Amino acid sequence: MDFKGRDVISVKDFSKKEINEILIYAKKMVPYAKGEKQTNILKEKILSSLFFEPSTRTRLSFECAMHRLGGNVIGFADPNATSQKKGESLADSIRMADAYSDAIVIRHPQEGAARLSGEFADSPVLNAGDGAGQHPTQCLLDLFTILTEKKKINGNKIVLLGDLKYGRTVHSLAYALSLFGAELIFVSPQSLKMPKEVISECKDFGVEPTNTTNLDNAIKDADVLYVTRIQKERFPDAEEYNKVIGTYKVDTELLKHAHNDLIIMHPLPRVVEIDPHVDKTPNALYFKQAFNGVPVRMALLSLILGGKKL
Amino acid sequence: MDFKGRDVISVKDFSKKEINEILIYAKKMVPYAKGEKQTNILKEKILSSLFFEPSTRTRLSFECAMHRLGGNVIGFADPNATSQKKGESLADSIRMADAYSDAIVIRHPQEGAARLSGEFADSPVLNAGDGAGQHPTQCLLDLFTILTEKKKINGNKIVLLGDLKYGRTVHSLAYALSLFGAELIFVSPQSLKMPKEVISECKDFGVEPTNTTNLDNAIKDADVLYVTRIQKERFPDAEEYNKVIGTYKVDTELLKHAHNDLIIMHPLPRVVEIDPHVDKTPNALYFKQAFNGVPVRMALLSLILGGKKL
Amino acid sequence: MDFKGRDVISVKDFSKKEINEILIYAKKMVPYAKGEKQTNILKEKILSSLFFEPSTRTRLSFECAMHRLGGNVIGFADPNATSQKKGESLADSIRMADAYSDAIVIRHPQEGAARLSGEFADSPVLNAGDGAGQHPTQCLLDLFTILTEKKKINGNKIVLLGDLKYGRTVHSLAYALSLFGAELIFVSPQSLKMPKEVISECKDFGVEPTNTTNLDNAIKDADVLYVTRIQKERFPDAEEYNKVIGTYKVDTELLKHAHNDLIIMHPLPRVVEIDPHVDKTPNALYFKQAFNGVPVRMALLSLILGGKKL
Repeated sequence: MDFKGRDVISVKDFSKKEINEILIYAKKMVPYAKGEKQTNILKEKILSSLFFEPSTRTRLSFECAMHRLGGNVIGFADPNATSQKKGESLADSIRMADAYSDAIVIRHPQEGAARLSGEFADSPVLNAGDGAGQHPTQCLLDLFTILTEKKKINGNKIVLLGDLKYGRTVHSLAYALSLFGAELIFVSPQSLKMPKEVISECKDFGVEPTNTTNLDNAIKDADVLYVTRIQKERFPDAEEYNKVIGTYKVDTELLKHAHNDLIIMHPLPRVVEIDPHVDKTPNALYFKQAFNGVPVRMALLSLILGGKKL
Repeated sequence: MDFKGRDVISVKDFSKKEINEILIYAKKMVPYAKGEKQTNILKEKILSSLFFEPSTRTRLSFECAMHRLGGNVIGFADPNATSQKKGESLADSIRMADAYSDAIVIRHPQEGAARLSGEFADSPVLNAGDGAGQHPTQCLLDLFTILTEKKKINGNKIVLLGDLKYGRTVHSLAYALSLFGAELIFVSPQSLKMPKEVISECKDFGVEPTNTTNLDNAIKDADVLYVTRIQKERFPDAEEYNKVIGTYKVDTELLKHAHNDLIIMHPLPRVVEIDPHVDKTPNALYFKQAFNGVPVRMALLSLILGGKKL
Repeated sequence: MDFKGRDVISVKDFSKKEINEILIYAKKMVPYAKGEKQTNILKEKILSSLFFEPSTRTRLSFECAMHRLGGNVIGFADPNATSQKKGESLADSIRMADAYSDAIVIRHPQEGAARLSGEFADSPVLNAGDGAGQHPTQCLLDLFTILTEKKKINGNKIVLLGDLKYGRTVHSLAYALSLFGAELIFVSPQSLKMPKEVISECKDFGVEPTNTTNLDNAIKDADVLYVTRIQKERFPDAEEYNKVIGTYKVDTELLKHAHNDLIIMHPLPRVVEIDPHVDKTPNALYFKQAFNGVPVRMALLSLILGGKKL
């Protein structure tokens, strides 16, 4: 398998075997991600970090990953400081970054923006979220978290909770978990159910997801509870948002229904979905999950930039 | 004394002996801060620079300090590009930075924000100013400036001028100068007098500060004149601000009342408090004082990150 | 010739011989700019990148240049995150950067700001554009592009097209091309003609520029077509802008009038001046021209910072 020079636009661009290789390499990156070991395999490489929409967590973990490998970062965190305001096309902005760096990570409010960027850049492009589209590095770090905590992905009973309609993260995750043979339970308000196309993709892999609105029941045998934020910015209508926000609340009361070894995940930032009292329970994995973004992104950056293997 | 892993929230967290050690180490850092000598004792360490409120001087001097030691920086200069806008709590933002870096420097508009951050982060947290609260690295660089110019801190006659009520800098500075046995004269408009609690702290160290509104008299025997900006953003009331702005003006006329070896300090930025003609006099120390932020912050970063001793 | 410590404010500060030396050194930088070769001749040097006005392309190419030479960058991309908002003077902001870095690159909306900055800083100052004033590194990379594509600058027939009145880039470029003995044709709407002072400068070097509004004719024998954006932000009057925007359009139809080896340049960003279909023609040089900003800025940074010669 050769990753050098490849774009990372969607998790669907990678085979199960390739995803496995990324996850195994990410495991090796952990002590470097923590700063316990040092390397400079990407010494003097430059990453363009183009955030046409703010996303502090994703941006900082990419920048951390690049620095932990000895590389440098240029870019912007905010569309207001860009030539887009002067009317420049995305294609021209990408060609610019392409001339000034060895790889490009892009976050953009419009679906398809990352794929388009990949077509205009010679350097590899990493999608850090394109609107209602894909966010493959989030998906990979979610898989990595389940794998490292549960030793395997297949066979786990995984509850996906919250906004399953507009929530970008859960669509790719449902696909990837099905690819790996996990058991899926979708819990959401009626108005925010998982789209049929996603369910159909799961079935293609032989997975038969359960759909329910009842979290108490769903959690009983679950190994993983994956909570998502109901994102105001994805809702076409504010009234619709107000109806569903706060439908579910993950708190210590709910945990009484669960196994001791249930792990709770969340892509973060969270708002009201998880009670802060849950943070201190051994079930709370979301902060470790956020850290896992570093070794996973280090593995990807190293592979696509052709860094010497660690 | 071991500084490794410690937070730097308030100058009061350090003993006189510890402050002395920091200042002595800062002295060693000067040629490295100027770029005359090179070191990389913090090679591949990452500093998170989280400015929830803009402060260019403080931010750039921290980032300079980190680079002069061979380290890297990630972060944001502006709260508009953060997840706080999505409703994330400060605690969660800090945990994020904690996962992506080896130390955190935080500037925040709310008093107590840095202390709270220190509680949520495993990595050391440096307070770069929290509203009306503390700004310990400013205080340390002020002490360092007096020490290097006057060879000692104790015994110096030091005038603190301007907004002594809302001015955060002067509160910690009055405390620290008293700890070191300086002689203090407080000059301010009646409405902006030094708070009683601060005066009481000075007295605890046996210092009896003089309070006056008369700058011409106060400056006569002074060794140090510490000028502060009257900060519009700290005033609850714009009218109150307009009454006092421009009460005092440090100009070459005023300097005729002073000793030749008076040094004039200011935390900067300044607006109208010091006439630019003063810049060319040998008394003007404020630009050198600003530079001193680099060796002092280098010393702190190196000590708390456990860098090899220079 | 010694460049060490010199400011780069205007291309007019350099003799023809000096410009030649910069261009020759830039040529050597190309493989390093592409990341094919690695160097760290500016290891642990710090560049302050002060953008009081956004300009992504110029900023990122300077930052890329600094990293490709092994150096570091601090600064801001956006005036909103600076002390200027607190009322600080430009002189004080520059003195601050001077204390925290080894060289300063400044972009500022006001003409003369870079020259003023050079007077207040001990470190070398590079002008990255000051309003209607100068943008010398753009001019040098334009010369570099013509030189590398055409093997010489003198004798080439060069069309400057678009807003020749307010367009900063074309004024310095007309000067520099005249210095090198190129043949000049100015094409613009009547209301945006090249100012008399610039034409008079060209004549001082023995160049007699042609002025016309007819692009089809002008392009017939041209070796270089230099297109500029009609910049809304430079127009005192929006109505005036609406009259002229779209007067000229460079498309494949126009290219039928031109030689095969015509090269088309543009300082970018472009809006509507060049049809995207032109991008795929061998005549389109503007993306390569943008890349050329890196080796040229590397050469300048290395020369003024006294880096070891490559």
